[in-house]
Amino acid sequence: MDKIVIKEDVLSSLCIDIFSCKIPRHEAEIIVDNLIEANLSGVSSHGVTKVFDYLSRQEKNLIAASTEITVEQDQITTFTWNANNGWGAVVGQKAMQECIERAKIYGVSFGAVNQSNHFGIASYYSKIAAQQNMIGFTFTNSSNVMVPYGGRTPSLGTNPICISVPTGTDVIVTLDMSTGVTARGRITLAQKLNQKIPNNWAITVDGNETTDPTEALKGYILPMGAKGSGLAIMVDILTGVLTGANFGSGVPRQYEEDIPQNLGHFFGVIDISKFIDLDEFYKDMKVRIDQIIQSEPMEGFDRVMFPGQIEYEKKCQQLEHGIELDKEIYQELITLAKKYNINVERYEQVLNGIS
Amino acid sequence: MDKIVIKEDVLSSLCIDIFSCKIPRHEAEIIVDNLIEANLSGVSSHGVTKVFDYLSRQEKNLIAASTEITVEQDQITTFTWNANNGWGAVVGQKAMQECIERAKIYGVSFGAVNQSNHFGIASYYSKIAAQQNMIGFTFTNSSNVMVPYGGRTPSLGTNPICISVPTGTDVIVTLDMSTGVTARGRITLAQKLNQKIPNNWAITVDGNETTDPTEALKGYILPMGAKGSGLAIMVDILTGVLTGANFGSGVPRQYEEDIPQNLGHFFGVIDISKFIDLDEFYKDMKVRIDQIIQSEPMEGFDRVMFPGQIEYEKKCQQLEHGIELDKEIYQELITLAKKYNINVERYEQVLNGIS
Repeated sequence: MDKIVIKEDVLSSLCIDIFSCKIPRHEAEIIVDNLIEANLSGVSSHGVTKVFDYLSRQEKNLIAASTEITVEQDQITTFTWNANNGWGAVVGQKAMQECIERAKIYGVSFGAVNQSNHFGIASYYSKIAAQQNMIGFTFTNSSNVMVPYGGRTPSLGTNPICISVPTGTDVIVTLDMSTGVTARGRITLAQKLNQKIPNNWAITVDGNETTDPTEALKGYILPMGAKGSGLAIMVDILTGVLTGANFGSGVPRQYEEDIPQNLGHFFGVIDISKFIDLDEFYKDMKVRIDQIIQSEPMEGFDRVMFPGQIEYEKKCQQLEHGIELDKEIYQELITLAKKYNINVERYEQVLNGIS
Repeated sequence: MDKIVIKEDVLSSLCIDIFSCKIPRHEAEIIVDNLIEANLSGVSSHGVTKVFDYLSRQEKNLIAASTEITVEQDQITTFTWNANNGWGAVVGQKAMQECIERAKIYGVSFGAVNQSNHFGIASYYSKIAAQQNMIGFTFTNSSNVMVPYGGRTPSLGTNPICISVPTGTDVIVTLDMSTGVTARGRITLAQKLNQKIPNNWAITVDGNETTDPTEALKGYILPMGAKGSGLAIMVDILTGVLTGANFGSGVPRQYEEDIPQNLGHFFGVIDISKFIDLDEFYKDMKVRIDQIIQSEPMEGFDRVMFPGQIEYEKKCQQLEHGIELDKEIYQELITLAKKYNINVERYEQVLNGIS
């Protein structure tokens, strides 16, 4: 596929202009900030390509135009919010900020969200906490596309786990992992490229092994063994059962089912300074990271990296040189913008090599 | 190996008698309760076989005779305790109970412990929270026996993650997983049985693949892929860096190095009722479990199980019929008891089929 390179502020501005035709601008800014963070970090499956998916659902009234949060529980260090079918990124950013404020006072705080929608990349939220010298935790459930270990009846999403830890520099150690053996995006890519997939990634709708990406996408992803399955179940309990959202097989599929998803998220913040002197923590984090990156690599590896290092390096590089994006996606964004009568002159210049 | 079947109260009493010769009886009771829970649940690697390991270290003064806890930080929902090289199970039980008391008031609570030792099975602590209608989290770091993903220089333990969730019945959904590709105990067992191990379990001390359990035990365990490695690093940050304990390559090996380990633990409790009505939570937990166990099994599986189901069923069975134990281990326990001048008449009757 042809690629273009585009400055993040230009790409961001285009996407905000598009969303703002349909939803409040201040909400559009948060959603797009999340998508751009994904592109910058090299997680393009969760980047601006989501603009089409999100708007398609919004135009079918499957997502509310604005995010009106109702407080269902408000305790000392905990809360449960109803997002009333609003935007995952909007309620997510607010909920994480609320956890941070409470953790500053009380040491820790956890917040539950129900009646929500896809919130983009989980690390976006955990990193907000890390930027304020705290450890951030983010969990969400998701479309029912995965089977439990040993089973052929699906009742799980590839429910991610995300933890971000600050280091006292601009580096944030971040683990953001799905609990499936692979991301659904890799199967979609194999389908596009007409490639076979390994037979341990997914099963057909009838529960049989498959190397055909089309059959796999109709079927179900396999969990990362018994442990990945167990983690996915625990994430579903925290984000679905504990929050009062949909859970398990009750979560409709984002792309195939025209029903509001009622997803649940769970956010947590731990204030490091309540446990240990912050300077001491950062001194030891440097040692902890060094032990990883100074490890002698095994055969087949160039180097050993800390969690989130690939994404960090990619972001630094793309902040400086611009985001590499499929030209086709960018052209589709411009087409969409034209449909909404947005002045796209400035954005079209990028295609002529000026940005 | 020959097996005996023994009632849990008899086995417990023997082990407490033995420990009480060396450490305060009330501490012995907690440690043994943890070991017996492991045996009952079928996790015999963490059962009463640990009596020898623990006492061997205690007799070398590598573990303090009694657990004197010093409070290093005491904030509203958080605390950091120094176990002063005391017993992991003793400080662990107290720390979890402290988290529960604070979570009852504030909603959540997390406690850090440093200067500790091996604390047995992690699920022991998380389940204490679950028995009080709360979700319990338990983490610990451990001996430096594992390499980070892609590396051949070790700087990790097989650092476990444990989460327990109550269901309103005596069933507790419990995930208690090491972050390594296998437990070290399985390699030890292969060595005993003169069997080869799969080549993806461990590497030699020189960083090469091996199927020889003896070489593997001298070398390092492999993490459960990049995700297992990332989780192990995060657990080490929470239990080592955040607590002020040893971490990474700084953690001495329990069996090979005669140095106090200065392990760190991290405990957490979430009060369910602060987020959602408890009855509603339990109603939905039943649905959540049913979605798993009613899943049609894949080829090669008899049934699909929830996390902790195997251990739960084993415990029910062994509470009724007695614990199955290697006869050799039991005989060694009696030999040890005799060395300490304990009256073993009652315990020897078990070997004659009376218990």
